[in-house]
Amino acid sequence: MSQIRAWAALAAGKPLEAYSFDPGPLAPEEVEVAVEHCGICHSDLSVLTNEWGLSIFPCVAGHEVVGRVVAVGGQAKGVVVGQRVGVGWNAGSCCQCRLCRSGDQHLCSSVQPTIIGHHGGFAERMRAHWTWVFPLPDALDSASAGPLLCGGITVFYPLLRYAAPAQRVGVVGIGGLGHMALKFANAYGCEVTAFTSNESKYDDAGAFGAHHVISSCDSGAMKTIARSLDLILYTANVPLDWKALLATLAPKGRLHVVGMVLEPMVVKATTLIGAEKTISGSPTGSPGAIATMLDFAARHNIAPKIERFPMRRINDALDHLKTGKARYRVVLDADFA
Amino acid sequence: MSQIRAWAALAAGKPLEAYSFDPGPLAPEEVEVAVEHCGICHSDLSVLTNEWGLSIFPCVAGHEVVGRVVAVGGQAKGVVVGQRVGVGWNAGSCCQCRLCRSGDQHLCSSVQPTIIGHHGGFAERMRAHWTWVFPLPDALDSASAGPLLCGGITVFYPLLRYAAPAQRVGVVGIGGLGHMALKFANAYGCEVTAFTSNESKYDDAGAFGAHHVISSCDSGAMKTIARSLDLILYTANVPLDWKALLATLAPKGRLHVVGMVLEPMVVKATTLIGAEKTISGSPTGSPGAIATMLDFAARHNIAPKIERFPMRRINDALDHLKTGKARYRVVLDADFA
Repeated sequence: MSQIRAWAALAAGKPLEAYSFDPGPLAPEEVEVAVEHCGICHSDLSVLTNEWGLSIFPCVAGHEVVGRVVAVGGQAKGVVVGQRVGVGWNAGSCCQCRLCRSGDQHLCSSVQPTIIGHHGGFAERMRAHWTWVFPLPDALDSASAGPLLCGGITVFYPLLRYAAPAQRVGVVGIGGLGHMALKFANAYGCEVTAFTSNESKYDDAGAFGAHHVISSCDSGAMKTIARSLDLILYTANVPLDWKALLATLAPKGRLHVVGMVLEPMVVKATTLIGAEKTISGSPTGSPGAIATMLDFAARHNIAPKIERFPMRRINDALDHLKTGKARYRVVLDADFA
Repeated sequence: MSQIRAWAALAAGKPLEAYSFDPGPLAPEEVEVAVEHCGICHSDLSVLTNEWGLSIFPCVAGHEVVGRVVAVGGQAKGVVVGQRVGVGWNAGSCCQCRLCRSGDQHLCSSVQPTIIGHHGGFAERMRAHWTWVFPLPDALDSASAGPLLCGGITVFYPLLRYAAPAQRVGVVGIGGLGHMALKFANAYGCEVTAFTSNESKYDDAGAFGAHHVISSCDSGAMKTIARSLDLILYTANVPLDWKALLATLAPKGRLHVVGMVLEPMVVKATTLIGAEKTISGSPTGSPGAIATMLDFAARHNIAPKIERFPMRRINDALDHLKTGKARYRVVLDADFA
């Protein structure tokens, strides 16, 4: 195939600039997708600034891709040229380890993230192993489907694994991930409590599906819901008062962290022992869970609330997210001439 | 009933001394048990020294009781006078909250510990609500059954809740709890790895059921089993290198803490997120689980390895445990004249 035009950071923290690269021959199990829309996730910022120390430059980020299949390798399965698809955080896995063969491809020790050592969706085209290319249900809108592929599955996966409709679910942080978590948890049948430090988001949280909204800065308010929540999805990437938060869990409750909080959590074992509490985490989700999530979103009419930017304004869009202004997910519309 | 003779600490950390008290009339749902044997658990030491700040003095400790029912309240169910029974960490619960009615009586917010604000088994007789009095299967030996009621259920309960026979289970700390954990996990069908800092326990660990023994101080040895364990039962009450230990968990693995580690755990959320790991804890177990554990122990011929002391030597026995000499559980034989 021809060169691919893209927007890349040439080094950590640099503004993105026009960049093109030769993707080489399409591998037998790969699929090439013409990008139509690509969401911006907080982890794009983390990788572009090398916050985690894992980035490889030049870096073409973007891992909430919606587009059309334009080429399919000879051994690729499940998709055909012309099909509308999505690609998320991962673009490949080994397919042969025990985890891959058990349906836990996202935990494969050779899993290939879309934007680390691989070029993502801030581009006219991008590639992924067919396992990680998902046909989109017709009911999903193209412009808003992208954020489901990373942010959406990240919050849906713990619901799928741990929640039940009669449970009480808390969502901490009402941003890109959190607002989708409220929608999914509500549709899942749960009683939903939003935790936010930002009063201006209270009304939105209710509209997204929260039955209750609690200030995460108000220890008195936190106490009113002591011992009540079965599952808390922690979507923020800054730490909270873990002890106060754990106190809102019911016996046998679970605090599940999906936000990349870099500061260590400090927790007393006795807090977990006394009422049989659990702390856990997860990264995005498996291909099986992603397909289930897309069907669920289509059936329940779930989409992120988005703000759109043409891809040529990508640096403005990144700044919009970085400065905390996104309400609630930024999506780029591909506009290569 | 008449006065009950016992061994009590009159204040925190004092040697136990002969003590007698009037238990008052037997409540309708209570059962009185003539103590024949009583194990000593590390939490007896913690309560006698008021390490947790919850103790009430005079304190009659002892919560691994085996004896005969000598009186049954008019509304008590499930036991009859003369029956051989055991009592463990709890002696009562409200019976009416949602947790009690769901079979999670051990998580009832009014649960009554046997030795906090209630007199336990370092005595000629003790009482408990019938819910917490367990008939013992005939196959269990009286002298060694006591430690099953607290230490035993504490390690069996997480196996019952989280383990499956094809899994790989680690046990950290080969003491009173840990040595029973090895026996239970082996009988459960699991591949069992013992972690201990004490080389003199290696052979014993193998005899108890460990297929592998690892030095918990040897970071090189820990690395050889990276990403391998599905469940770790942490039975020690001092902290370890949590990061090194979590690295031995397989993806989706669980570190489950039952040892009362008082120092806060410091854990990075990203460690949990990356390979979908879990940290949890639990306190003893429910009455249903205790009955199941007793049946399982009888069927698999599981008993703790015990050292026996006459109850009049209770202070020597407590010292024996306190100084780390117990191999592996100390049991007192009641010897009131």
